[in-house]
Amino acid sequence: MSYTYDDQNIFAKILRGEIPNTTILETEHTLAFEDINPVAPTHVLVIPKGPYVTYDHFLAEASDAEIVDFHRSINEVAHRTQAAEAAGGQGFRAITNAGKNAHPDVPHFHFHILAGRPLGPILAT
Amino acid sequence: MSYTYDDQNIFAKILRGEIPNTTILETEHTLAFEDINPVAPTHVLVIPKGPYVTYDHFLAEASDAEIVDFHRSINEVAHRTQAAEAAGGQGFRAITNAGKNAHPDVPHFHFHILAGRPLGPILAT
Repeated sequence: MSYTYDDQNIFAKILRGEIPNTTILETEHTLAFEDINPVAPTHVLVIPKGPYVTYDHFLAEASDAEIVDFHRSINEVAHRTQAAEAAGGQGFRAITNAGKNAHPDVPHFHFHILAGRPLGPILAT
Repeated sequence: MSYTYDDQNIFAKILRGEIPNTTILETEHTLAFEDINPVAPTHVLVIPKGPYVTYDHFLAEASDAEIVDFHRSINEVAHRTQAAEAAGGQGFRAITNAGKNAHPDVPHFHFHILAGRPLGPILAT
């Protein structure tokens, strides 16, 4: 199986500026913005600008520069939101879902950065 | 605040060979092995060999080579365990916890790779 990117997904529209977002961080390869349906006081989505469907798709096809930029952006988000303990916060969780057994979601690879309250066990069920 | 690494944590002992593990993948900078207390049919831990306490610590201080190696190893694990849809699987979730609001855990940065059943919503509470 190979991945087919749907350029009508909501994150593609955000990247094209067709839908507004509350930006936390933007770099050459990465955009981070607030989730419009937060499940924690801090809930930021971090996405690559390239057309990747899932994490494994991104990690298989993105360049080293995209991979470094994307993940270092997660650290920058953890600092800008004051979630990281190194930024004076109480910590955070980073989650990505890939495929049908994970949470059904937007088909543009993204990380959830969650913080601001105790986050509980790693799985709900 | 800066991070202080405790070299007596269980993953440090695994990396030194003092405690056995069931290895899924080993590279220059990264080790992946089965979680001894799995919460899903596939539950693999991916850790850097370097002494990093949390994800933000790793992303702030690791080299580009370590960052690329670590994350591409996550993709390799998703394939070796046949979790990734591109490997014929039903998908996976990748999670890391950093700091006291996340799940209390081993103080050596690690990702959980979870697969093999429906994984439910992204937070339990």
